[in-house]
Amino acid sequence: MIDKIHHVGIAVHDLDEALKFYRDTLGLHVHARDTVEDQGVKAALLTIGESEIELLEPTRPDSAVGKFLERKGEGLHHICFQTEDVDGDLETLKEKEVPLVDQKSRRGIAGMICFLHPKASRGVLVELATPMEMYRG
Amino acid sequence: MIDKIHHVGIAVHDLDEALKFYRDTLGLHVHARDTVEDQGVKAALLTIGESEIELLEPTRPDSAVGKFLERKGEGLHHICFQTEDVDGDLETLKEKEVPLVDQKSRRGIAGMICFLHPKASRGVLVELATPMEMYRG
Repeated sequence: MIDKIHHVGIAVHDLDEALKFYRDTLGLHVHARDTVEDQGVKAALLTIGESEIELLEPTRPDSAVGKFLERKGEGLHHICFQTEDVDGDLETLKEKEVPLVDQKSRRGIAGMICFLHPKASRGVLVELATPMEMYRG
Repeated sequence: MIDKIHHVGIAVHDLDEALKFYRDTLGLHVHARDTVEDQGVKAALLTIGESEIELLEPTRPDSAVGKFLERKGEGLHHICFQTEDVDGDLETLKEKEVPLVDQKSRRGIAGMICFLHPKASRGVLVELATPMEMYRG
């Protein structure tokens, strides 16, 4: 089902402050920036081996990342696993009665994505993603 | 400084319960188990691409992972970046006055390791590791 860690998402108050550590101190390369208005988040994507670090800053306090920051503060937010077939995996997860946030895949920063419910995965917010160039949906 | 994500650490109450999701549902392979008595933790390591998922169960409540579970509950605990030279990187981080947990590298599950202080990295507990087969310390 899973090929690799696509990215690890980190919730931060201020992307530019966070880049002082992840880009300037660790030396990671920022290969993209993206803003997803309907999810109320802006992101900086940093390359690390075959994976990414996804720094997430909320654009409004009532967004998912905004609420996470208010509740838990800055830190690790989610982990995203890459799969060739996010839709097929979703069907398999439904058959196994795994609790889901998304019943259908949708367009996200990493491609076609879905989130599982953290109670499925011992408190971890897990995302599955099929990058658009791999997607055959 | 950094080659790849070596692993993502997840704090759980019960390794065997957690394996029902990460091994049985996601299909990840458990390639090792380890217990580090002086750190009060037992671990299951699952392969994912060039990285690992490290499931961590405390062997006593006053261990670092035990205290984390009591304070925050199950979930993402830390991220470990692989480097060829953990000792050289530690010196660089000290020169940059980055807050550290460990002033010297020490033996851990992933090799010679050190932890940075979460205030260095926007609330994320960051570990650096040089696997023993790469270590020239």
